[in-house]
Amino acid sequence: MMISPKSFASDNHAGVHPAIFEAMAAANHDDAPAYGDDAWTSTFERQIKEAFGPQAEGFAVLNGAGANMVGLPLMLGRYDAIICADTAHIATHETGAAERLLGVKLITVPTPDGKLRPADITGQAHKLGSHHEPQPRAVSISQVTELGTCYTPAEITELSEAAHAVGMRLHMDGARLANAAAHLDCGLDAITTAAGVDVFSFGGTKNGALAAEAVVVLDPSLNRSIPYLRRQSLQLASKMRFISAQLSALLTDDLWHQNAAHANAMATRLADGISSAPGITLAYPVQSNAVFATVPAHVATTLRSRYLFHHWDEAAGIVRWMTAFNTTPEQIDDFLNAIHTAATP
Amino acid sequence: MMISPKSFASDNHAGVHPAIFEAMAAANHDDAPAYGDDAWTSTFERQIKEAFGPQAEGFAVLNGAGANMVGLPLMLGRYDAIICADTAHIATHETGAAERLLGVKLITVPTPDGKLRPADITGQAHKLGSHHEPQPRAVSISQVTELGTCYTPAEITELSEAAHAVGMRLHMDGARLANAAAHLDCGLDAITTAAGVDVFSFGGTKNGALAAEAVVVLDPSLNRSIPYLRRQSLQLASKMRFISAQLSALLTDDLWHQNAAHANAMATRLADGISSAPGITLAYPVQSNAVFATVPAHVATTLRSRYLFHHWDEAAGIVRWMTAFNTTPEQIDDFLNAIHTAATP
Amino acid sequence: MMISPKSFASDNHAGVHPAIFEAMAAANHDDAPAYGDDAWTSTFERQIKEAFGPQAEGFAVLNGAGANMVGLPLMLGRYDAIICADTAHIATHETGAAERLLGVKLITVPTPDGKLRPADITGQAHKLGSHHEPQPRAVSISQVTELGTCYTPAEITELSEAAHAVGMRLHMDGARLANAAAHLDCGLDAITTAAGVDVFSFGGTKNGALAAEAVVVLDPSLNRSIPYLRRQSLQLASKMRFISAQLSALLTDDLWHQNAAHANAMATRLADGISSAPGITLAYPVQSNAVFATVPAHVATTLRSRYLFHHWDEAAGIVRWMTAFNTTPEQIDDFLNAIHTAATP
Amino acid sequence: MMISPKSFASDNHAGVHPAIFEAMAAANHDDAPAYGDDAWTSTFERQIKEAFGPQAEGFAVLNGAGANMVGLPLMLGRYDAIICADTAHIATHETGAAERLLGVKLITVPTPDGKLRPADITGQAHKLGSHHEPQPRAVSISQVTELGTCYTPAEITELSEAAHAVGMRLHMDGARLANAAAHLDCGLDAITTAAGVDVFSFGGTKNGALAAEAVVVLDPSLNRSIPYLRRQSLQLASKMRFISAQLSALLTDDLWHQNAAHANAMATRLADGISSAPGITLAYPVQSNAVFATVPAHVATTLRSRYLFHHWDEAAGIVRWMTAFNTTPEQIDDFLNAIHTAATP
Repeated sequence: MMISPKSFASDNHAGVHPAIFEAMAAANHDDAPAYGDDAWTSTFERQIKEAFGPQAEGFAVLNGAGANMVGLPLMLGRYDAIICADTAHIATHETGAAERLLGVKLITVPTPDGKLRPADITGQAHKLGSHHEPQPRAVSISQVTELGTCYTPAEITELSEAAHAVGMRLHMDGARLANAAAHLDCGLDAITTAAGVDVFSFGGTKNGALAAEAVVVLDPSLNRSIPYLRRQSLQLASKMRFISAQLSALLTDDLWHQNAAHANAMATRLADGISSAPGITLAYPVQSNAVFATVPAHVATTLRSRYLFHHWDEAAGIVRWMTAFNTTPEQIDDFLNAIHTAATP
Repeated sequence: MMISPKSFASDNHAGVHPAIFEAMAAANHDDAPAYGDDAWTSTFERQIKEAFGPQAEGFAVLNGAGANMVGLPLMLGRYDAIICADTAHIATHETGAAERLLGVKLITVPTPDGKLRPADITGQAHKLGSHHEPQPRAVSISQVTELGTCYTPAEITELSEAAHAVGMRLHMDGARLANAAAHLDCGLDAITTAAGVDVFSFGGTKNGALAAEAVVVLDPSLNRSIPYLRRQSLQLASKMRFISAQLSALLTDDLWHQNAAHANAMATRLADGISSAPGITLAYPVQSNAVFATVPAHVATTLRSRYLFHHWDEAAGIVRWMTAFNTTPEQIDDFLNAIHTAATP
Repeated sequence: MMISPKSFASDNHAGVHPAIFEAMAAANHDDAPAYGDDAWTSTFERQIKEAFGPQAEGFAVLNGAGANMVGLPLMLGRYDAIICADTAHIATHETGAAERLLGVKLITVPTPDGKLRPADITGQAHKLGSHHEPQPRAVSISQVTELGTCYTPAEITELSEAAHAVGMRLHMDGARLANAAAHLDCGLDAITTAAGVDVFSFGGTKNGALAAEAVVVLDPSLNRSIPYLRRQSLQLASKMRFISAQLSALLTDDLWHQNAAHANAMATRLADGISSAPGITLAYPVQSNAVFATVPAHVATTLRSRYLFHHWDEAAGIVRWMTAFNTTPEQIDDFLNAIHTAATP
Repeated sequence: MMISPKSFASDNHAGVHPAIFEAMAAANHDDAPAYGDDAWTSTFERQIKEAFGPQAEGFAVLNGAGANMVGLPLMLGRYDAIICADTAHIATHETGAAERLLGVKLITVPTPDGKLRPADITGQAHKLGSHHEPQPRAVSISQVTELGTCYTPAEITELSEAAHAVGMRLHMDGARLANAAAHLDCGLDAITTAAGVDVFSFGGTKNGALAAEAVVVLDPSLNRSIPYLRRQSLQLASKMRFISAQLSALLTDDLWHQNAAHANAMATRLADGISSAPGITLAYPVQSNAVFATVPAHVATTLRSRYLFHHWDEAAGIVRWMTAFNTTPEQIDDFLNAIHTAATP
């Protein structure tokens, strides 16, 4: 039987999970107030508190960059800076939105694995109080990182403590938060609320939603300005019920976990399968739904004629293969066959 | 038979038109490239050219404010200004996005009916060349206006000629462009391409979509920067196929016209029905799906206990009643009954 | 004896008062720490407290627009708005700096005389709390106004009370604060500290300095961010001693009052002299160093061949004649002769 | 004879050169038009053309950060980026002005000596055309660098060629341009006009002026917007004659060279003198008026009790000693005595 070509380029290439699509369909009847004053949004807000604790407040937005641009300014004034890894999505793939929309500097720190260490925070604290320098007031980490790696709960706690000790806040870009929790086999709260995060995003789109992310604020003192910032930053949906319904579906019966765990398992299956492929090695440990592999150039070329995926670092020969909620074991095995065939001399 | 309560607060309170929902469902299979490199987006782009002419290029975005914030900067440098009516949505209901995201000044002009006149443009031209003053480089009009009125094709042509004569560009906020074309009984191109508009938005959300608007650029010299601005302004959907599919459905078999004409007809039915209601008068001519009426305070209070709608100008006693693609004649008649009952002494 | 032509275009056309120039010369010896850590700045800071009260803190900047752009953001977040007269300098002659540098909206209110009334503040308060609208958090008034008029201390108090009652702050653009105090025959504190102003600028340049203005913060809770904002906004002089020395000279032996009172007297002399000129009338009461007069077109044309001055409103035939610390009675009398000669049929 | 303590902290700690002060005094008579429409500014503009070629246009501004913020946006749109050394003043000591005022990203490159190489430019060119990434459109180098080193004319030419080859522009932060030209023993044009620079600043303040810098535009196609940007960026002096007079004095009889060569000679004298001091080594070659030295901690502590200077890198024990036009050989020798005394065990 023919297996149709599969994209390994991004978890954004997958469509919408049937249960999420059905939730949108179920919301599509009668009139409902716009901008969030509806029953679906109330349910979503309640589910956020259930997942992250009673002080948690969730605000639905339209995409991941939007979630970052709404969440980060809660912690930043006009002359402040964000400490982040030099691989951070806000630093590399959001077209300078942080600089233009927020007007802040990104202090980008090199890392071996996409993960900040406490010393990366404390090493910037001497700038606080010098009026010639942007003031580092927020630390932003990505969970899962852009290299597919995860922070453990203990590592996040260390970072939040290091940040708070010098008067900074900890932000988490959780576009793939579900994949991290699934990999770590913990609850979503263990890597957010319990670990001292102040504001984070909880991504839906890469985990089976059409277009839905939540900004979650854990420190109630930071809540006041978010409705204005969300509206001004073009992230407030008028027909909000359909955005809330997506997030609500993900938070119902642990669909977020089911989707993420499946995607992660497919990445692990892929990683396991290439371990015996000649000339191919993992560039980073596989801790989510991403496989970064160093691949000979001719192998990459052969594979790209049949499959979609991105070079991560063309000079270094590193490719990125992503799986998603809809990736099947058969597709992984088909891809592995192709990899082995291409790699075998 | 019981008729369930109806919202007349906004065309955003309606859900998604079945044909549009079905188009999204039809797009939900297999993988597809993200960010617009997919078949649904190609179809949408072709349909934009069919509707607006071969030089037209369409870019799908997520909401109306987003469409404005992506379209306007194509025409504006760092020290420029936009001339608009003081009722313009960009001036009143986008939380200052134009000022913060674009960094430009809005020169807001009072009007009797939400419509700019050529003199409103030429009267600002003396500022061009004075380096102490923001440079008015773009004129932004709303079609339909925020007062429910429409510009005729001739009026738009006069404005574009006035703007171009002094080196300005003409932008149109077309969140309800379909309603205008339906009211004027003309094609979409008659009030855009043929009338000299440079850049405009074509709204889907208020006309039956879930969340989908198009920025359309008619002057090819303005096209270059839009992909960057769309991404940076948080208006680029990753799973773009679902946004394009909505717009494509609206542009198929004139669904845009069918939905808008129906909504307009419902507003006319409402306006006709209140003409005999004691103490109630139209505040502006009904030229779209909006009815602005001056209503005694006690009547408004009585009606608001059962129906959702906004006061437009509480001091003047003006209310705004909106209809949508899903408004039924029965709902209008029920509302008219309620109005007459409340208004009759 | 020939009297050389005189500019009545602006108090900026005057040079530097000898005492101020001498103060700069006196500061020009040896090394001194940069950026304000010097003896001249300490003296200036002490003098500000003497003039405005112990809670007042002064920050020297380079120009009037700079003083506004450093003082206003102390009171404004990312989605806020400023209420000001539609003639305000920040709204008309600072090239949109408020919109671009601060990212905020100016809500511009028409006035008969350049002066806001309490109702102009309370009439905007309904926007507070609506997340679709920029939040009016600051009121900015100009003292002297751009039409040459002055607020009385009682009028300012009414405005500060109206603003504070709804949670807004009161800012004063005091580019000609000295002229106002001289006209009102009161201390500088009577129209600032005692009248409830939160933040204001105290202008030096139009009153005999080379380039020096002070931002004065009266509410200590607003002080924290100003060093960063001043540096970021390009208003921090490295060789600060020379800026502080100018302001210090103005604050020594009431030089600010002497210069302003003289300029005001020259304007009054001019206004008195034209009262008998046929066809010429005052457009606004003369309450500072500015004379706004309605003048027949041919008279203006004749005068402009010999004197520098600006049309304020060409259509209305209104010209603006400014005097300065260096204007002499002989120059006024010479100009009056020319006016009468030109105006007499 | 007692020699009074000397600051080696910054060339900003020096006062104003007598010839420059005298030029300001000579400009202080009668009225003169504001904002640059005066004779002194005309002279300055002519001198810029004489120094840098007929296509050069000079615009006087108030400080070095201001010169950068007015010059850089000539080359940058709303989603662009600047490539610069990670030591660049715009990246480290302007409180994030580039990010907030311009809204652009700084791509900061590590360097051994503060100097970019062509590969630092070509290595970023792959980002051009990707709408997820800020577009690197300008390269900014500092001449003298923040580490006191100079680019040779050939090195600058290589950079401008590398930049232009990929469609980027070359900007030069010339806060100490005079020191570079004096060190290289060449004309100012050899390291700007002849080397392919597009826009640069020519610093006056660190070379004996009170507060005066020039933005010089060599590519006439970039000129149009600068008057507006200068005004909006708070860098337009109203009493411009006094700013222009300072720059004019520097450009008269090669005062710029005389001041810079003297300061450089003092730095060389200091560097020569410390070569025999035990435990003290130069951190970077001395190519201007800056000496960076690695100094034992106790020596630095002893010296700081009597002299003003900054630690550049406290962890590495590197201090920065600056000289200026007013530094005397006696002051250097006195300092050298103190250094040797402190450093000798």
